[in-house]
Amino acid sequence: MKVISLSDMEKIPVTMQDAAGVCKQLPLSAADGSPVFSFRVFTIEPGGHTPYHTHPFEHMNFIIEGSGELVQENGDKIALKKGDFALVLPDELHQYRNSSASESFIMICAVPKEYE
Amino acid sequence: MKVISLSDMEKIPVTMQDAAGVCKQLPLSAADGSPVFSFRVFTIEPGGHTPYHTHPFEHMNFIIEGSGELVQENGDKIALKKGDFALVLPDELHQYRNSSASESFIMICAVPKEYE
Repeated sequence: MKVISLSDMEKIPVTMQDAAGVCKQLPLSAADGSPVFSFRVFTIEPGGHTPYHTHPFEHMNFIIEGSGELVQENGDKIALKKGDFALVLPDELHQYRNSSASESFIMICAVPKEYE
Repeated sequence: MKVISLSDMEKIPVTMQDAAGVCKQLPLSAADGSPVFSFRVFTIEPGGHTPYHTHPFEHMNFIIEGSGELVQENGDKIALKKGDFALVLPDELHQYRNSSASESFIMICAVPKEYE
């Protein structure tokens, strides 16, 4: 068993190409013995976004704080707010954006542990 | 892609033996095409608890609201509060309890989709 508070975890800046204003925390991971999945947390600052990209695995999201948007394959955006869940299937083009001018956008982004 | 708000999902009472005051929601599941994992949400009312049991798969938790405790194999309890993550490994004896006299305890409890 492991219990950890998000507020006790270091935030690591994400340096991936086309990411802007994004930090990552890794509360539950392969290093904890997680058999299948890992729970990552991304904080996106106002004006920030993840890459608009695709990959062969899914994202499972829960919005912890703030408001943002999920950009779909056709460019349309779905609003995301605190308390929402999102599922991005493998190979779906997607991007997460903070849509607030002042608040951080904080979400769980769970993935198979091979891709944590 | 799917986006759904927790507040829009029906709560189903959990009738499993030795569960008390527990409701379940299933925001992201096999029915949504989730390839590997499912995200369930349990609400435990004051005085309520899940069964004290074990099973051959893991739990991955995030505490959305309230305060509770995670009972371990030796009977010791780990405090859980809003913003905490927990990992219960396969075959670890465990129980979740609401430790507040007035507030609901609400948590994500993710599992492999075969066990949702």
